[in-house]
Amino acid sequence: MDGAREHAMADELAKEFKEHSVAEFFKKNKQMLGLVGKIRTLTTIIHEYVTNSLDACEEAKILPDIEITLDELGTEYYELTVKDNGPGLTEKTVGKAFGQLLAGTKFHRMMQSRGQQGIGAAGCTMYSQMTTGKPVRVITGSGKGKPFSVEVSIDPKANQPKLTNFVELNKDFKGVAVKAKFKGVKYVNSEQAPLEYLRRTAIANPHLRIKFRSPTKETTIFERTNKTIPSKPIEMRPHPKGATVDEILTLSKSTDARKINSFLKNEFDRMGDKAISGISKKVSFDLNKDPKKLTWEESEEIIKAFKTIAFIAPRTDGLKPIGEERISKSLKSIVEPEFLSVITRKPSVYSGGFPFLVEVAIAYGGKAGRGMGVKDDEGVEQRKIEIMRFANRVPLLFDGGGCAITKAVQSIDWKRYGVRDMERAPITIFVNLISVYVPYTSAGKQAVSEEPEIVEDIRLALMDSGRRTGRYIVGKRRLQEKKMKKETFLKYIPEIAMALKKLTKENEDMLKEKLEKLVIAKLKLEEKEEEDIPEDIEEAIKITTIDARGNK
Amino acid sequence: MDGAREHAMADELAKEFKEHSVAEFFKKNKQMLGLVGKIRTLTTIIHEYVTNSLDACEEAKILPDIEITLDELGTEYYELTVKDNGPGLTEKTVGKAFGQLLAGTKFHRMMQSRGQQGIGAAGCTMYSQMTTGKPVRVITGSGKGKPFSVEVSIDPKANQPKLTNFVELNKDFKGVAVKAKFKGVKYVNSEQAPLEYLRRTAIANPHLRIKFRSPTKETTIFERTNKTIPSKPIEMRPHPKGATVDEILTLSKSTDARKINSFLKNEFDRMGDKAISGISKKVSFDLNKDPKKLTWEESEEIIKAFKTIAFIAPRTDGLKPIGEERISKSLKSIVEPEFLSVITRKPSVYSGGFPFLVEVAIAYGGKAGRGMGVKDDEGVEQRKIEIMRFANRVPLLFDGGGCAITKAVQSIDWKRYGVRDMERAPITIFVNLISVYVPYTSAGKQAVSEEPEIVEDIRLALMDSGRRTGRYIVGKRRLQEKKMKKETFLKYIPEIAMALKKLTKENEDMLKEKLEKLVIAKLKLEEKEEEDIPEDIEEAIKITTIDARGNK
Repeated sequence: MDGAREHAMADELAKEFKEHSVAEFFKKNKQMLGLVGKIRTLTTIIHEYVTNSLDACEEAKILPDIEITLDELGTEYYELTVKDNGPGLTEKTVGKAFGQLLAGTKFHRMMQSRGQQGIGAAGCTMYSQMTTGKPVRVITGSGKGKPFSVEVSIDPKANQPKLTNFVELNKDFKGVAVKAKFKGVKYVNSEQAPLEYLRRTAIANPHLRIKFRSPTKETTIFERTNKTIPSKPIEMRPHPKGATVDEILTLSKSTDARKINSFLKNEFDRMGDKAISGISKKVSFDLNKDPKKLTWEESEEIIKAFKTIAFIAPRTDGLKPIGEERISKSLKSIVEPEFLSVITRKPSVYSGGFPFLVEVAIAYGGKAGRGMGVKDDEGVEQRKIEIMRFANRVPLLFDGGGCAITKAVQSIDWKRYGVRDMERAPITIFVNLISVYVPYTSAGKQAVSEEPEIVEDIRLALMDSGRRTGRYIVGKRRLQEKKMKKETFLKYIPEIAMALKKLTKENEDMLKEKLEKLVIAKLKLEEKEEEDIPEDIEEAIKITTIDARGNK
Repeated sequence: MDGAREHAMADELAKEFKEHSVAEFFKKNKQMLGLVGKIRTLTTIIHEYVTNSLDACEEAKILPDIEITLDELGTEYYELTVKDNGPGLTEKTVGKAFGQLLAGTKFHRMMQSRGQQGIGAAGCTMYSQMTTGKPVRVITGSGKGKPFSVEVSIDPKANQPKLTNFVELNKDFKGVAVKAKFKGVKYVNSEQAPLEYLRRTAIANPHLRIKFRSPTKETTIFERTNKTIPSKPIEMRPHPKGATVDEILTLSKSTDARKINSFLKNEFDRMGDKAISGISKKVSFDLNKDPKKLTWEESEEIIKAFKTIAFIAPRTDGLKPIGEERISKSLKSIVEPEFLSVITRKPSVYSGGFPFLVEVAIAYGGKAGRGMGVKDDEGVEQRKIEIMRFANRVPLLFDGGGCAITKAVQSIDWKRYGVRDMERAPITIFVNLISVYVPYTSAGKQAVSEEPEIVEDIRLALMDSGRRTGRYIVGKRRLQEKKMKKETFLKYIPEIAMALKKLTKENEDMLKEKLEKLVIAKLKLEEKEEEDIPEDIEEAIKITTIDARGNK
């Protein structure tokens, strides 16, 4: 190794150092946005548009009405139109929403929403542009001024939108309609395809109406089963128990407050005068100090003080779960289970101070589980476990293997709950994670990172729900066993009667009758219970709910 | 819904539209960089630094020597030092390398390397800063001028490095040493912890020497088993068969070439005069045209023309696999298998024109598989299958569930290859994906996206290797069965001899001897083969290799 040469290397490498934009990054790494595989890419694109429409409608308190049309233009070449009745976009925002990555309304707000990155729709524009060379057309009206139509594309090097062919429209329209062409995608009807995505979206959003027209011109409508507009999620402040030193320091630099005490009261949840007074006794500096002058060490003191104070649990009203009743109605209508148990855990906080809550349902029997296309001896289709994952009501169809929800389900010893073989159980497990910030493992937002608090809360909800389901399964199995016992006994009566007839010369029918009576008397207790089955099952299909405090 | 209100909404939302930098994005979504969980975060950080060191050494043709020291400063608070003997950084590059996301030498080059995003080391700086408030210290020397020490931090809003406390050093040093503090991390010794990461790094990089000192001051040294510097990977050009319209168009805007034909020859692999002449006959425009004036439609014509031409397969010399011999040496020394089969597939191209190749090894018996801590009746520890995933020689320890490599392994019907139960099989499956661009599912680079060509190639390699392993397993099982048969026969000889003695009054020992001879004569064939076992097994531990063309 000669020194001169190595040095030349460092210099040479220096010349190779270049910066790239986030648009260039995701253009190259488009699989990180879920834009990979012909089927998945199409589902991802529809997911991004629908997600944005739902968030906008919810924030504007509008009952969402979404129309999706997919037209086949050629081999693996489609035109997609997604139209909503939301609040619409302005001339100023349309470019940012559809033509710039990392721009949007959701990233900096601590509020439950489906989108949270400011990447999705712009990623779709980039994909359209990469595969067809064409911009996407956006038609939007906000109710003020005339609706307009504009074409949006992206300059990847600058990560900036380009708007062309702006046209004012002489018609009434409120909402957003996006029309975009994509190549290298494929429409099919499968487990991970658009229709299943929309079906699950409808399950988790019963207030939503979706109309979908497939490339073969078949129209599917998911009608709303609930006409109440869900309450708008509330922007929340971080809870002190999950706050970090860096968070305090970062927030302190941008606050309008002039004193640390008012800064803490403004920026953190549950920060009352009593807490402030407690903190002031624990820290070595004056809380009347300018927050902009806060140092790392002082922030550390504040965090230490936080730990010693008994704060009220995080606000729960900012998180808007689907709700037990709605989940139960949705699942009953779709999977028609024999038994259903729905659990809503009380809100909790995970690392970083983010409030979250978990909704879990276990549906057993009926059409629960995933049909395997194979029938057993009695002509009943074999079904295996199906896990339906949702985050803030958005169905997660991909990357299940690396998701905290799947991990939580797999960590449960289901045998303890009467499930002998998960691969042959008619069970649908529904999990919805609600949070002001969902820690996705990737920008493609299909899997939840394994935050210990989240995994644990899902586990607890599953175990609770599993116990209820288990009691039903075990009860049902016992009844079946008793029934089989009775059938076995009765089966041999004719033969025994015939044998007795030979011995006693008595009337065979009379003997049969007596023997049957004997068996039934012997099995009376079981018989009694057997007669109760229908009622039992009827009774069992009830919703078990736990309120926010964990009480029944 | 009154119009005035909805419009107010669109306007209100417009005010909320904000842009955020990529540093802010990954600071909030740090789990997307693998910075999640106390143990995983520490492994990820070490992984990022080691990866950068190895890439730099390889490019500078230096045999890498890496020293890692981890000191515990407090509860879940550590100081990490990673020192290499690479080419070093300059004053100009040190900030970009450690203090700016999406900056580096690797993103824009189509060359096999471990890093490829320009995120890793800067992400570590951000994490250090977020958890300790402190910058990281970098000491580096390139052989020219004096080595220097500098502190690097990041301004997340601007995604720009801040350099402080620059000091020139009066000592000799070539390479990079980074010293950084981290909180919220934890050192343990487990499957996904630093030591296992380094062990696997050593397996896949036999030319590397790593010295690791744990917080308990235990030093582990992985000595190099091979002193040849691996040949430097070559920067490659995209192969026309995988090129896209967008790629041609994007490249055409930045080329120095003045004519489309020379542009194509410069930018694409295997583009000879014959191909150019073929293309010119297929397209409707003159290939002497200025490439900067190329349109989308014309690029489409070029892609169509590409499809009709029989290009030579992609260059293979740019990809640098570990090599069968080295893999076999590594695995033999570590897992001491009874049987080992190593396969290198010939290079191929996946969507986007990226060349890749797959190296697969299956090790059976010995210490292969993962010990379960449970012993069977014969005192042998039960072992289950272990999948070792690598991409460009980098061990992938996390997110296995969502990885193309895992999916490929799971898609194989291992029963066909004599493996009755994968959960109880002493098997280590080693897969290394080599490519100029590894399609990771997330910026955390722990799982490979399911590109169909990649999955298929891994499957083919696994099946090939599986067949060889299967023959060994089935052969071994048959021998065992024969052995058991013989033992069963011999077991009853004493009783039969005793019975015969009673009947014939002959000498019992003589009878036993004769009976044994009879059994052995009867099982002579098996006996013969049985004697051959040791040699058979000895013979079996040989390396089966397939060359780049698929020949044995």
